[in-house]
Amino acid sequence: MSDRSDVLEANASFYRAFQTKSLEAMDHIWAEEEVSCVHPGWPALESRASILDSYKMISSHAEQEPVLCLNPRLVLRGDHALVLCEEQVGVSLLVASNLFLRAPKGWRLLHHQASPLMQARPNVEAGRLN
Amino acid sequence: MSDRSDVLEANASFYRAFQTKSLEAMDHIWAEEEVSCVHPGWPALESRASILDSYKMISSHAEQEPVLCLNPRLVLRGDHALVLCEEQVGVSLLVASNLFLRAPKGWRLLHHQASPLMQARPNVEAGRLN
Repeated sequence: MSDRSDVLEANASFYRAFQTKSLEAMDHIWAEEEVSCVHPGWPALESRASILDSYKMISSHAEQEPVLCLNPRLVLRGDHALVLCEEQVGVSLLVASNLFLRAPKGWRLLHHQASPLMQARPNVEAGRLN
Repeated sequence: MSDRSDVLEANASFYRAFQTKSLEAMDHIWAEEEVSCVHPGWPALESRASILDSYKMISSHAEQEPVLCLNPRLVLRGDHALVLCEEQVGVSLLVASNLFLRAPKGWRLLHHQASPLMQARPNVEAGRLN
């Protein structure tokens, strides 16, 4: 497979791990390096242990709606790759950035940030950040 | 200067460009490569032109409050560096990820995402993403 398809497959694996609530798969997809994760509204998690704990906690909630990855776009640059996508969680839309590193055994997730997308784009209209 | 201090200085330059509303400085800090930017609530901007336009629009609003960078943390990995920080905008707190690339003339910003930090951490308490 090409690097591009490998990264997109790694990105898809991340969302599959979430959907299937597989902590083993989630553990596999995150890099061994210094990793970080920003769930919507949460402070940044900056250790592997805290990130895996967060997915364990989130997955334990039966009412957690599936997180679907829409329209992934990829920028590949050497051993780093950034995937931008939208996430659909129930009726909510989020914007996500997923940064991957080429590790010895394949592409692994270094950093994830997801944040709510205002569908009425109020900040765009107002032209202000807050 | 060391790579670490160079990256932190590039990160500080990004926030200074915002604070001083200098579009020239903002243009300077963004890489020439494929860049992307997610302002809070906005859809991802995926071109240099759309990113610089967004800062022009935001800076033109006299009531835009300063965006202050708090507590920057850096992970350096070869030619890439990721800075995590909080941003204070008036009374609001955001979480930001700033990804830098080592370019021929110094570290340049490849990707920025900022999103609101829920200070009551409702999603943490509920353990759900939405």
